[in-house]
Amino acid sequence: MEDVSLNNWRFGENEQVLAASKISVRGVLYSLMDCLNKEDERGSIPLGHGDPSAFPCFRTTPVAEQAVIHALTSARYNSYCPSVGILPARRAVAEYLSQDLPYKVSADDVFLTTGCNHAIDYILTVLARPNANILIPRPGFPSYESQAAFTGLEARHFDLLPEKSWEVDLQSVEALADENTVAIVIINPGNPCGNVYTYHHLKQVAETARKLGIMVIADEVYAHLTFGPNPFVPMGAFASIVPVVTLGSISKRWLVPGWRLGWLVINDLNDILRKTGVVGCIKSFSNMAADPATFMQGAIPELIEKTKGEFFTKTVELLKHTADICYERVKEIPCFFCPYKPEGSMFVMVKLNLSLLEGIHDDMEFCVKLAKEESVIVLPGMAVGLKNWLRITFAIESSALEDGLTRIKAFCARHKV
Amino acid sequence: MEDVSLNNWRFGENEQVLAASKISVRGVLYSLMDCLNKEDERGSIPLGHGDPSAFPCFRTTPVAEQAVIHALTSARYNSYCPSVGILPARRAVAEYLSQDLPYKVSADDVFLTTGCNHAIDYILTVLARPNANILIPRPGFPSYESQAAFTGLEARHFDLLPEKSWEVDLQSVEALADENTVAIVIINPGNPCGNVYTYHHLKQVAETARKLGIMVIADEVYAHLTFGPNPFVPMGAFASIVPVVTLGSISKRWLVPGWRLGWLVINDLNDILRKTGVVGCIKSFSNMAADPATFMQGAIPELIEKTKGEFFTKTVELLKHTADICYERVKEIPCFFCPYKPEGSMFVMVKLNLSLLEGIHDDMEFCVKLAKEESVIVLPGMAVGLKNWLRITFAIESSALEDGLTRIKAFCARHKV
Repeated sequence: MEDVSLNNWRFGENEQVLAASKISVRGVLYSLMDCLNKEDERGSIPLGHGDPSAFPCFRTTPVAEQAVIHALTSARYNSYCPSVGILPARRAVAEYLSQDLPYKVSADDVFLTTGCNHAIDYILTVLARPNANILIPRPGFPSYESQAAFTGLEARHFDLLPEKSWEVDLQSVEALADENTVAIVIINPGNPCGNVYTYHHLKQVAETARKLGIMVIADEVYAHLTFGPNPFVPMGAFASIVPVVTLGSISKRWLVPGWRLGWLVINDLNDILRKTGVVGCIKSFSNMAADPATFMQGAIPELIEKTKGEFFTKTVELLKHTADICYERVKEIPCFFCPYKPEGSMFVMVKLNLSLLEGIHDDMEFCVKLAKEESVIVLPGMAVGLKNWLRITFAIESSALEDGLTRIKAFCARHKV
Repeated sequence: MEDVSLNNWRFGENEQVLAASKISVRGVLYSLMDCLNKEDERGSIPLGHGDPSAFPCFRTTPVAEQAVIHALTSARYNSYCPSVGILPARRAVAEYLSQDLPYKVSADDVFLTTGCNHAIDYILTVLARPNANILIPRPGFPSYESQAAFTGLEARHFDLLPEKSWEVDLQSVEALADENTVAIVIINPGNPCGNVYTYHHLKQVAETARKLGIMVIADEVYAHLTFGPNPFVPMGAFASIVPVVTLGSISKRWLVPGWRLGWLVINDLNDILRKTGVVGCIKSFSNMAADPATFMQGAIPELIEKTKGEFFTKTVELLKHTADICYERVKEIPCFFCPYKPEGSMFVMVKLNLSLLEGIHDDMEFCVKLAKEESVIVLPGMAVGLKNWLRITFAIESSALEDGLTRIKAFCARHKV
């Protein structure tokens, strides 16, 4: 063929997509994995992401696998599903969440999604209107930034206060909001901070949101993964005060993030989200959105009903144990400052004291060199909105965690001023 | 609590989402299902959607179920996946598609998606730039309209010509395109028309696209479901002429649309999509997009390798048989005109002669009354861009198909002028 010069072609990249997707946990972790030294015979230690499922001690319960096999081999779930999800699965999720609430969630309030990340996509897309803005915690989870940028929502950041157990700075929330603010995002148990909010604090958040006329997006993907004094309290407990949209999934509690089954749930005792058209818009978007596999949905009733409390207890005990190890070992490292001992989720935030390090100028450089020299992957704080901090995952097998923290300690000692 | 009047709340619906999602196959079919007479003891007959998997004769092969079970119970696929999909699955899809091509597709050219619909979402999102437009067939598949509207791409429609076996009206394509046109969509085998394009016609499409400087989006979700004289020819065969992005999935050939595993594949021997940034943008978007379940990806190599030719042959023979039944029975109905005997996919398009019907003024009214009176669901042509036509699915068990067409015939006789 003749000339195929690039000038002949009229298509190209979408700059909004490039900008929106610039920071993702996966993207940052991949770039760090590219730095690993393949000749290091010790193997790499993943302290970067919230996914312990590769470790045998964090394997899901056989009950969950059986539930999927039963659904799959029934041949009843090979077809397309209704866009909001199949009714038995929605009902099962409604009953599951109702156990923690002073009222019953209805199956109609549940929308099934392709994991919790997809639920974030759902609600931010539905809320995006010209000039609208949304309040997002700093530090937070980068999917909120990228989805907001992608849908054209302006992201405004309020601080979580390390000296106050990473509680929301409610004053800064009030100062940030204006007449175009539509929602506040609360992640509890906390990612990346490992905090667990009290009933009292969550009620304050609800009252602040009500005062501002905004809804609460409650990201509870780490629900029930708590091991400190504060029990997990769902934001939906305050659904008489303010409309709450709860996001969750089976990913973390069942240790199966790869199974891609999440939910978006309406907690709204005054029916405001329906009356303002938000619920209708969620339904409309579901007609366009990707669906979780129908047989995964078919598995949900059995998966929820048959999973024994002991499985959950064992996971929480393991996390408590590894969080203890992590906190104690982090304290031994002079250039680390950890303001809060994690009580939930799978992470702890650690502040870098760069003045104690030679030749390391920021968190990303720390993580790149750590990956190269010690084959340990840790998430730089810039990925979660806090430059020169680190997010360390303790949700891995304890000997691997000890090994990883030993390597980090050696790395810091080697690079000390 | 005090006043909860709606005026207090600052959030609301996203009008762009409402507009974009207004027409979907699912949405239209649900509204028709709502019209079904629950007291009709005959039960309903679904001639509306491309999903025969509920009928035992269209059950998937046990090999496919086993592949999923093996992946699931290996515990190797419980984790998050790389955003583009896991390598063994990408490699297996590349090898599978290469069988039909004069060159080898590389695993790097394959991006795994949550079904083919999600692949449409991917490519339209990546191509959406300010003022860009895309050429879409009429009749066509409504996901292209809704995703274009959602991402802000202008949809321009070229006609498929019923009198020419639903070939593309290439002259109208040239007339529609301008300097902001980025792509043309070709669905082959055809949905909704049941056509299968010749090598010669596809080459003409490729040459036209090259002349216009646009890429071809080749929707081949019905690949290999052909039963007429024309064999299936992948658009990727012309990847030296024009860049082609091929969309597909296991949904149709393996009869498992609910399993949600599709792909977007780069066929581009001159490497134009990479050089223009399109491939990079697809990768970027994958960091934000929903993933297919990791164990579904893990199952793909075994699923593709072990499925026997006899399974595919049996499906095609069944479809040929039901297409024959459908075409013959449709010809007996005076108010129907069928310009083309389907040779692929699962559908036939039939034109309504409303002058022969009493009290029925358009295709939607026809379908609503048919659902009410005869418990038969058929898709009105308005859902696929051709008003006063119908899309009839023949991909159901043959006795149910005969029953459905008998009811339609009785309905038309009862409503004749």
